[in-house]
This record gives sequence, structure tokens and C-alpha cells, in this order.
Amino acid sequence: MPSYNAPLRDMRFVLHEVLGVGNYQNLPGFEDASPDTVDAVIEEGAKFAQEVLQPINQSGDREGCKWDAGNVTTPKGFKEAYKQYCEGGWTGLTSLKEYGGQGLPYYVGVLLSEIVTSANMAWGMYPGLSHGAYEAIAAHGSDELKKTYLPKLVSGEWTGTMNLTEPHCGTDLGLMRTKAEPQPDGSYRITGTKIFISAGEHDMTDNIVHLVLAKIVGGPEGIRGVSLFIVPKFLPNADGSPGERNGVSCGSIEHKMGIKANATAVLNYDNAKGWLVGKAHKGMRGMFTMMNAARLGVGVQGLGLAEVSYQNGLAYAKERVQGRSLGGIKAPDKAADPIIVHPDVRRMLLTCKAFTEGARMLTYWAGLNVDLAHKHPDAMARREADDLLGLITPIVKAYQTDMGFECANLAMQCLGGHGYIAEWGMEQFVRDARIAQIYEGANGVQALDLVGRKLPANMGRSLRTFFHPLDAFLKEQAADAAMKDFIGPLLRAFGRLQQATALIAEKGMADAEEAGAASSDYLRLFALTAVGWMWAKMARVAIDKLAAGGGEDPGFYRTKLATARFFMERMLPDTASLQQKIQAGKRTLMELDAAAF
Amino acid sequence: MPSYNAPLRDMRFVLHEVLGVGNYQNLPGFEDASPDTVDAVIEEGAKFAQEVLQPINQSGDREGCKWDAGNVTTPKGFKEAYKQYCEGGWTGLTSLKEYGGQGLPYYVGVLLSEIVTSANMAWGMYPGLSHGAYEAIAAHGSDELKKTYLPKLVSGEWTGTMNLTEPHCGTDLGLMRTKAEPQPDGSYRITGTKIFISAGEHDMTDNIVHLVLAKIVGGPEGIRGVSLFIVPKFLPNADGSPGERNGVSCGSIEHKMGIKANATAVLNYDNAKGWLVGKAHKGMRGMFTMMNAARLGVGVQGLGLAEVSYQNGLAYAKERVQGRSLGGIKAPDKAADPIIVHPDVRRMLLTCKAFTEGARMLTYWAGLNVDLAHKHPDAMARREADDLLGLITPIVKAYQTDMGFECANLAMQCLGGHGYIAEWGMEQFVRDARIAQIYEGANGVQALDLVGRKLPANMGRSLRTFFHPLDAFLKEQAADAAMKDFIGPLLRAFGRLQQATALIAEKGMADAEEAGAASSDYLRLFALTAVGWMWAKMARVAIDKLAAGGGEDPGFYRTKLATARFFMERMLPDTASLQQKIQAGKRTLMELDAAAF
Repeated sequence: MPSYNAPLRDMRFVLHEVLGVGNYQNLPGFEDASPDTVDAVIEEGAKFAQEVLQPINQSGDREGCKWDAGNVTTPKGFKEAYKQYCEGGWTGLTSLKEYGGQGLPYYVGVLLSEIVTSANMAWGMYPGLSHGAYEAIAAHGSDELKKTYLPKLVSGEWTGTMNLTEPHCGTDLGLMRTKAEPQPDGSYRITGTKIFISAGEHDMTDNIVHLVLAKIVGGPEGIRGVSLFIVPKFLPNADGSPGERNGVSCGSIEHKMGIKANATAVLNYDNAKGWLVGKAHKGMRGMFTMMNAARLGVGVQGLGLAEVSYQNGLAYAKERVQGRSLGGIKAPDKAADPIIVHPDVRRMLLTCKAFTEGARMLTYWAGLNVDLAHKHPDAMARREADDLLGLITPIVKAYQTDMGFECANLAMQCLGGHGYIAEWGMEQFVRDARIAQIYEGANGVQALDLVGRKLPANMGRSLRTFFHPLDAFLKEQAADAAMKDFIGPLLRAFGRLQQATALIAEKGMADAEEAGAASSDYLRLFALTAVGWMWAKMARVAIDKLAAGGGEDPGFYRTKLATARFFMERMLPDTASLQQKIQAGKRTLMELDAAAF
Repeated sequence: MPSYNAPLRDMRFVLHEVLGVGNYQNLPGFEDASPDTVDAVIEEGAKFAQEVLQPINQSGDREGCKWDAGNVTTPKGFKEAYKQYCEGGWTGLTSLKEYGGQGLPYYVGVLLSEIVTSANMAWGMYPGLSHGAYEAIAAHGSDELKKTYLPKLVSGEWTGTMNLTEPHCGTDLGLMRTKAEPQPDGSYRITGTKIFISAGEHDMTDNIVHLVLAKIVGGPEGIRGVSLFIVPKFLPNADGSPGERNGVSCGSIEHKMGIKANATAVLNYDNAKGWLVGKAHKGMRGMFTMMNAARLGVGVQGLGLAEVSYQNGLAYAKERVQGRSLGGIKAPDKAADPIIVHPDVRRMLLTCKAFTEGARMLTYWAGLNVDLAHKHPDAMARREADDLLGLITPIVKAYQTDMGFECANLAMQCLGGHGYIAEWGMEQFVRDARIAQIYEGANGVQALDLVGRKLPANMGRSLRTFFHPLDAFLKEQAADAAMKDFIGPLLRAFGRLQQATALIAEKGMADAEEAGAASSDYLRLFALTAVGWMWAKMARVAIDKLAAGGGEDPGFYRTKLATARFFMERMLPDTASLQQKIQAGKRTLMELDAAAF
């Protein structure tokens, strides 16, 4: 059975030693977030995840959710764990104090989310989806809706969902058929079928708050006629308790490859009562508020699964003896050496390690920018953070989920045949990780978002929030011989990224298919450069710490430098091939007729 | 529910138009294998696979195998399908006529195996393992063993298995504990536990012939003391019927990620009666006979799953409408365009297509070389074929199973959320494909086999069987402008492969860890170059056919050329990054202590 220990040391390194989050205590909401407080919160969260959530991860997968006549039973222990989670105040960790939350910075929630995902991804999606609903209502809901729903979501008494997909439409929401008919009392009647609704029905709370996209009858065609509604499972009474059952029912749940302990519901809306969130026909705004947060959140899932997979692949590689080291016997007292002596096993493990630690830095940096975008006192700083966030969100989502899946597979490979056996738990990580490449916008859609929206946005302003400071960093560090192993490879990668960006800007302007043809390779090139930058920053800190004696744990910094070198020499070179593929252009992709495939 | 149509046109193209297998009819055993006969056989096999095997693939996965008190029940329809398969003579397709087989060339079996895997991989493993047992006995068994067991394996009345792995040892078979005690009658008593035995127990036949590695008591230590035994489930009576139950029992079957319809058995041997196959302590020879064939067979599984995944991803991409083409509306009569208009969807599908068709050529070429190695009248030609086969077997096994898994994932990705739902069948392909990267030697072990054994073998003689004809081909084609799109990229890839080979030969001689550190990237670099060569050969034929008018179906050749260009421009560039990683050497892999990971 797999185990999990939250990587607290590494988390503290990124937060305090590299990002220096303690420097932002002048921001509103940060006053309670001293480094010591954040550390204590995360340690508590880790304890909860390790002791309560991780032990029911494998059993949850085996048992799955059960549907019976519209009701869904979650696996053994899920309900109890959720109750404990609410009692611990975890559901409201980063929510506003006025609704009962603790008002901690957004980035603290990102750390918690990584830990919860590593421990039990399927379970984590129940409170995870609630938080998206909270944010949409907080940002766009009327005062009355806020008063009615936010305290319940913050306390965890009720959970929330996002309802976008229909049987015939997912990516292209303009095709949506679910309709909303205005009622004299200002509410709407919602009718239609939504599918793939994560945490869409369950037995953990008294009520579920569905946020539903639908078209108001008579409104504009396509995506411009989509509005956002709150549709609770039970209509709240005046005192806030769940009252009459609303016209929404769970028709079935899906049998899936993984995240089996999270109910993926088909929801049938039959004249269900709903209330408009935000303005009519402007539903995509509210949905994007949820989706952007959700996309970062999905990127965190890639990170969380890579971490737990790595930990368990590593533990096996240290214990399992098989064959002898190519460099001479390492464990003469044993019949064979532990397989971690083999270069190729190390290649697999180091790929996981270098990805995970680099992506952790990228993710927490993104999380901090959510706070800065909302709370920085300076409007220009807010805008910059928002621009940067928009740019890197699709990268975090797509790259980290692709790599989360790859690392789960690499770690599983370290176990050989045992990796394929359910009992060992590694194949569950692979199956769970796979969904993150698909939902909240398939990774190909993220790539299109990057090249089609984020690059050209505001005449390249977003891009400059990334390119300029990276350029400055490279110039600053160029003269330092201690940084040579990192700056050279990063310079080459950045050069490739700049060239590819110019090419896409030029060719994509004339022909959008050229941008589309480059999109996935470009996103990966961008991601590798971004993570390369993160590694160079971490290397900088490690070098400085070692120069100052290395503190209590100089080995930690030496390992950081070795891992950074691995990333530079063994992972960043992929940028060379990516550049060539981007330069190849659209011809080979587009020349065949569909019938010729 | 997925569908499958055997790619008969492409198979014929490779066999007849590129490999020209008709030219080998002077080889013994080939006299019955006229192109028309082979086509007819394959068409019949395709019909059987499509009509009988494919319809029980998904239900087989859902139902799985059931273990009860040592007995295993296969899923509904499996037994009946197997009976039909035997009646059709498929089990003996390529076996010797003297044992009741049809004596057709080995390569015909490779084609059948691709088709069967595409239709139903888990089912295909029951007869697949029998064939490995047949080959080991045919090559190494005594006349009496041959007489007793081969006719039963050829007719399919009995199936066979391979027993290598024990709970504490897989890759390192020298650690094996299963022991064999010589008996006065010349037989042995076998005692020990074997795990991960595919098709190890089932209800499809009256008897199962286990081929078991064990150590004869008092023999040499380690791998040099391993012998191969036949241990039947039931001891054959004098008339050949299954008699007394032998001391082997199925302790349990594994719950696995995929191939759930194939029983992966724990087999307990308790003083079971067995007979030596080949010489005492030389068991690895017989096992390698099985394993080499099995490794090619596993490479075929990667190909087969990529093909069926591609077919179903493609069908969805042509039907599903979502969004509009970036190049202007393509289906004005519909609410949206089919998603195959999108460059990134095409990138995923073309990756599958270009891999599958290139790997098909590589695989059939390998299959033909099995025939040449055994049957060519000229000893030098036999040796060359055998050298080449040894070189490319680990490449076919590792590259094709890695890509089989990747293509299954890419095709699944084309379905978006539906790909993750069991009902659609795509996630089963992913789960089934995953095992092929692990069994018959994990892919990292294949890479070590390539750099550690196959490169240095006979002073590089094996390597020359690949490098020399490729070099000659490139020189031959260099002047032809029509081949420009293919020869340039292939030249660059081959240059990288030559440089990497020289580097490994030089550094690896002094330090085996350097060879190990390069091994997986080198195998991939070799594989891409090999498949690039296959594509260039196919392009050559397509160009010539088109120059001659293109026959009945010029579109087929034009599509071949477009797909070849895609491979050259979008897949072969990976060789650039791989070369850089190989050049990085072992430092970043080896510098960390295990404790620092």
C-alpha cells in the first residue's frame, strides 16, 4: 500500500527562501499569514491528509461511488473525513472572513490542495469544486445570493459544482441547449441535461449548490447567449436550512478509468428553480472566474500526483534488490543491489523529482500572483500579476498534467510488474492522473488559449510580464561563474522560445491554422523554459545558502543543485526538438483530407 | 463501443510492395506462401478477429477472470472463441507440418498476431503464450517431449506458459529459489512459487503445459544454475490424454490495471513432476528462444493497440462536431465542424498514423528476418538475419510498446471526457497497452540489452547489418530530388545515431555506467532512425508507383507520402534532443546518493 509524506521542507524552501512570501505581509489578508503561521497551517493540513485522507484513497478507488435511484453513496470513510475537514475549518481556509472563512492568502490554499491531492485526489475534488463555486458567487453574485450561499460553502455544510458540459457539447459551449425561462419572481426555470459533473451528487452534505450554464429563452445565439445560474439541490428555507427538493436529479454516474471515488454525475434539470449569477447572457464571465481558478487547481493535481508517485517509486527502488551495479557491487551483504543503483532507474526517478520540484515553484509563484492580482495596493502591480497569471495558467494546467501523468507512469515503471498490480497502488495514480489532461479544457485547448488569446492579449503585454524579468534575470546572473551550469542552458531555451514566439506572431497573424499547428509544441517549449527559470532561481538561492555555510542542512541545497543540473542537461534539451517541430509549420498537419486519414 | 477493421491494404503494401515477400518463395516452408495465399489467410484471420474476438474484448475487460479454489473461469465467450480458433487451424499456422501445423512463414504469424491483438489483446495472450512454449520445446526438447507435447500445442488442445518470475526476482533470474530434485526415472520434482504467469490457469483447455525455470539441487550458483523444465498441469497418459493431476496449483490471480481477461496466475509448485528441456543448467538458452520471440510479440502488441486506438480516435474526430475550423467554416450545414479540422487534433491522429504504419513496416521486416535466420539456404545470409534480428528486437519491443501506450493515450485524448469513460472503450486500450512496457523485460532492460549486449556483440557485427544497408540506401537515394523531403531528415538522424554510437562505444568501454546512462535515450534515437528508414523506403515505393500512374488507388500512395513527411518533420526531430541528452553523460544521473533523492 502506498504511503505519503507531505514534502514540507521543500514547500518551505519555495515559499520562504525563494518566493519570500513573508515580504508581502503588508498586503490585506496577509497580516495573519506570517511564515510561522503558514508553516503551522500546512503542517496541520499535512497531518490531516496523511492520517485521514491517504488511508482511504486506495479503498475509495476499489469501492467507488454507488448510484441508486438518484442517490449516490461515497466510499467508506469519505463522509466522516469530510466532516472532520469541515470541523477543522479547512473548507474556508482562504475564504473571506465576512462569510466565516479564515481569510488566508490564496497561495496557502494551493499548498493545501497539493497535499490533499497527493493523499487522495478523488476525495479532494469534493471540497475543491465547492471552492470554485464560492469564487464565482463571491465575484458575480448578488448580495442576497452571497448571504444565502457563501456561509454554507465556507463552512462546508454545502458543496458546490460546475455545470458546463452537455452530451453534445463540451469545448464548444455555444452549442449548449439547456434553457432558462424567466419567472415573475425574478427566478428562472432551468431545463436540460448536464454531464460529467464532478462531485455532482453524493451523501456528504445536506445540500449541493449547482452552478449551471444555460441559455435564457429568446437571448442571443451561441456563446453570447449563455448565462450562469445557481440551482440548489434543495431550495433554501428562510432560515437557511435546506427545504423543498428542486427539479434536479442525478440520472446516473459514469464508470471511469480513475477518480472512481468521485461521483461524475449526469444531472437532469427539469424546470428546476435557479437564480441568475451576474448579468444575463454574460455567464461566461462567471464561469471563467471559476475556470481559471479550476485550471490552476488542475495543474496542482498534476503536481500532487507526480509527488506521491515519485515518493512510492523511490521507496521501492531503494528497497528492491535486483542485479548488480554497473559500477561494481554496492551492497555486498545482499544477494543483489537495490535497483536505485541503475542509471536508467535514476533517470526515471530524477525526471519525477526535477519536474515536481520545478513545477512546485512555478505553481506557488502562480498562486502568489493570484493574491497580488487581487490584493496588491498598486493598480499597476495588480494588472501585471493578472497578466502574468493569465499567461501561465494554461501552461501550468497543460504541462503539469501531462507531466503528472508521465511521472505517475515513470514511478510505476520502477516497480516493474508490481506496478501493474492494483494492490501496490501505483496504477491508481496513473488512472487518476489521466483525467487532469482532459477536464477543465483538454490540454490541446489550453495550448490554443495560450497562442490564440494569451500571446496576442493587449498587444503582447502579458508576454512581457514573463519575458522582461526573465531577460533581466539572465543578464544579472550571466557573469557569475557559479551559475554557469544553469544560465547557459536557460539562455538557449529562452532563445528558442523567443524565436518560436516571433514565428507564431508573424505566421499566425496571417493564418490562424499556423498558430494552431504550433500550439502544443509551443506550450511545452514555454513550460520547459518557465520551469528552467524556476530551477535557475532555486539554484541561485541554494548557491547563496551554501556560500553562507548551508545552515542546518547543507545537503538539501547540494541536492537542489544536482537536481537543477539534471533538469538543465536531461530535460531542457527537449526545447531543441520542439523548436524544429514548430518551425515545420502547418503543412504536414493540414495537407490530408479527413477522408485520407 | 469501439470497432476494428484490420488494415489489410496497408498490410499488403508492406508485405508485397515494399518487402516483396513473394521473392522468397524458394525458401523452405515458403513454397505454400504465395502472395495470394498469404492475403487469403490474413483476410480470413481478420474476419475471425473482427467477428469473434473484438465483440468480446470490452465485456472480457468488464467481467475479468474469476478465481475459485484454484480454478479460473475466463470471461463469457472466451472459451468458445478459443474452440473456433483451434478448429480454424490458427494455433498451428506457422508450426511445423510434422506436428500438425501449416508450416507457413513466421512473418504470417506476426500479421495474425497484430490483428488478434487489435481485436482482443487479453484473449490473444492465451494462444500467444502457447506458441512461445512450442518454440522452446521444438528447439531444445528431446524427441519424446516433442512427440508428447508439440502436437497438443499445435492443435491448441493444450496451451503453454512461461514461468520465470518469483516474488523476489524478475529481471535478476539468478536469485531464483524454485528447485528441481532429480528422480531415479530421469524426471525431476519441482518446488517453488512463480508469479505473474500470464494465461497461467484457465478453463479453455484440458491441460496446460508450464515451461518452468528452476535450479537443480547441487548445481551452480546464480544464473548459471538455472534449468528449464516442462511441468504439465495434468501428467499425460500413454495415449496422450491428460491423466493424474500434477503438483502445481494456482494460488490466486492478480487484480491488474488491464488485460483483465487474461489470468495472471500465482503458481505453486509442490513436488510437481517435470522433465528437463535441453541441457541441465543451460535453461536460459531455451528461455531466450521463447523470450526473443516473445519480445517481438510484445512489440507487435504495441503496434496492434496503436492501430485500434487510432481507428477509434479517428472515427470520433470525424463525427464529433465542436467549434469551427481556424481556416474558415468547413461544414456550413452543421452547428459546428468535425474536430478533425483542428490542427492539434490532426497532430495527435497523425502521430498515431505515422507511428503505426512505420512500426508495421519495421515489425514485418523483423518477422521476415526470423524466417531468413532460420531458413535461408545461405549460412552467411542466415547469420546476417540473425544478427539484425538480435539488434532490432529490443528496439521493436521497447519503442513500439512505449509508442503503443502513447498512441492509445493520444487517441483517447481525441475523445475528450468521453475517452475517460469506460463505455467508450478507449481507456481500456490505455490500460491494456501499459503492461507491454513492463513484461518480457521492462523497457529499461531492453535498452541495456541494446547497449550492453547487442552493440558490442561480435565486435559490432550486428550493428553493421543495420548501418551498412542504411548508408547504402542513403547514398543511392541522395541524388533523387523526389526523395529530398525524406533523405535530408533521415541523413541528419542517422548522423546523430552514428555519433551517439561512437560516444557510447568509447565512453561505455571505460565505464559501463556511461552506457547505462545513455541507454534509453539511445534506444529511442535508434528506433526513430530505424522507423525513419522504413518511411523513406515506403516513400520510395509510393513515388515509383505514382510515377507509374498509381494503379487503382493513387490516393493511397499520396497519403503515404504525406504521412512520411509528417514523420520526418514532426517526429524525427526528437533525435536532436535525444542526442543532447546522450552527450550529457552520466554525471547528473549518478552524482546523488540514494539517500539524497
